[in-house]
Amino acid sequence: MREFELIGALRERLRPRRADTRLGIGDDAAILAPPPGHELVVTTDTLIGGRHFPHDTPAADIGFKSVAVNLSDLAAMGADPAWLTVALAAPVLRQAWCHAFIDGAREAIGARDIDIVGGDTTRSETLTVAITALGTLPQGSALRRDAARVGDLVAVTGTLGDAAAGLACWPGRAQAGADARALIARLTRPTPRDGMRLRGLAHAAIDVSDGLLADLGHILAASDVGARIDVDALPASPALTRHVVDSRQRRQLQATGGDDYELCLTLAPADLERARAALNCPLTVIGRIERATGLRLTDATGRVLDTQALSRAGWDHFDGR
Amino acid sequence: MREFELIGALRERLRPRRADTRLGIGDDAAILAPPPGHELVVTTDTLIGGRHFPHDTPAADIGFKSVAVNLSDLAAMGADPAWLTVALAAPVLRQAWCHAFIDGAREAIGARDIDIVGGDTTRSETLTVAITALGTLPQGSALRRDAARVGDLVAVTGTLGDAAAGLACWPGRAQAGADARALIARLTRPTPRDGMRLRGLAHAAIDVSDGLLADLGHILAASDVGARIDVDALPASPALTRHVVDSRQRRQLQATGGDDYELCLTLAPADLERARAALNCPLTVIGRIERATGLRLTDATGRVLDTQALSRAGWDHFDGR
Repeated sequence: MREFELIGALRERLRPRRADTRLGIGDDAAILAPPPGHELVVTTDTLIGGRHFPHDTPAADIGFKSVAVNLSDLAAMGADPAWLTVALAAPVLRQAWCHAFIDGAREAIGARDIDIVGGDTTRSETLTVAITALGTLPQGSALRRDAARVGDLVAVTGTLGDAAAGLACWPGRAQAGADARALIARLTRPTPRDGMRLRGLAHAAIDVSDGLLADLGHILAASDVGARIDVDALPASPALTRHVVDSRQRRQLQATGGDDYELCLTLAPADLERARAALNCPLTVIGRIERATGLRLTDATGRVLDTQALSRAGWDHFDGR
Repeated sequence: MREFELIGALRERLRPRRADTRLGIGDDAAILAPPPGHELVVTTDTLIGGRHFPHDTPAADIGFKSVAVNLSDLAAMGADPAWLTVALAAPVLRQAWCHAFIDGAREAIGARDIDIVGGDTTRSETLTVAITALGTLPQGSALRRDAARVGDLVAVTGTLGDAAAGLACWPGRAQAGADARALIARLTRPTPRDGMRLRGLAHAAIDVSDGLLADLGHILAASDVGARIDVDALPASPALTRHVVDSRQRRQLQATGGDDYELCLTLAPADLERARAALNCPLTVIGRIERATGLRLTDATGRVLDTQALSRAGWDHFDGR
């Protein structure tokens, strides 16, 4: 199918709904009107076939995940998501595939008020999805990595380690049981959290894409603080607990597994219950911010663990995988 | 080199300079503060190795062109360019290559006040550059494709056909003479025009990326008007005139060759001289907007030409090339 026809077919489905989208897809660029007194939050994340998702991933799952990981970055800033641009490159772009991709993207968007305002389709040997997400924030209210304070609690949303366990289940997915399927679903369809609900409550935040220890490390470095984390407090889903019975292996997945897209945040102890009430998902305290830099890991008995050994496994796109 | 180190090395070079860039590269997302009373203009363009530039293109040329084509889209809206995000995917990303890429990107930016505020590096079999460009506009002042009016002049900046001729010269570039080298430079390093200077003067505008006739066709369709174009009035560079001596072949390149990134615009005859004075490049009148839809081509003698035959060669990424 010719590019212009494909874009035309998609454009019909991507008509803007937001009043502040002045012009959507169809001109040289989109025109947006961010609300007065607000800042704009912008992030770009690229997903590559065979690298960020297996080659045989259904189009709808690719659409879902590509959008979800970008919304997760906005959530980690505390922003209200508003607009997306989607650059698709593939060896062949069939109309049915594109519509399934958009279906998945829409499912990730869910009830959020988001317009897809820009698009680009190109032929490439490698299936590539590059999304830019734009959100808005009342001025000065971002949840920045450099805002953690000594004495803050460290907390995470949802559960950790599911996506990494799901990746291990992927090859056998045809015969997978309910738990393995649930873990795979966390890999293919991560839930972007509603970070905007934490504005005014959390201090620092980051989304867990490379693994908890690696990502928390970015907060500690940017804030020039340290943390003590109880690895036995890391939240595990029932599916993970049943599927990975070895507790050491499970802890490793929770501490270093990538792709969960939960939020890791720091907040004053006094704000914990309000943050829990504001969120629509569990929020688990896993440690505390300390003045001494570096990351100290303990288990539930207070025994100090080897942080180096546990944190080495962080996700690094240029380091092998 | 590991991704984090690479990003660190680049981040040093990409420190924000604009006062309204509240946070650049280094958090989950950038934070920007668009000026009050302004709209935001957003465009995404992806360039693929072997498709939008030859595989053996130097990194600096890739950086230049990737930025230039995105700035060109902002120019076609009349926007002031402000911010870029750059998603790079490649089989290997060496530090020297990345620095050369940034050098080229900076050259394309030139004296413009633009920050690169977001980045993403990923491993991929295919060299891919996906850039999102953001600009600002006083509210309601965009140069939209649907704004051409009957009686408008049709004009183009600079010269046409150079990039397409340059592409034909690429295989023999080692032995290329001065003219061929000049044409190749127009392909590898297109000049983004300063479309913001046309705000309040031009009505409709588009950048010539797919070929003049194809791109002008978008203005005509969106504005529900037609045009009469004198193909002998299409501006040619001295290099093109000397290098392509066959006038029919030259005309074909000028009318349908892609990748020139000149602006095609419509404006009231009374505003022509002011537009010429505002621009820092030539502006050539090539025709007029008419009520009857469709495109009518004539030569300098007034003879009507076969539009179909001439316009078939427009650039379509999914149609062969």
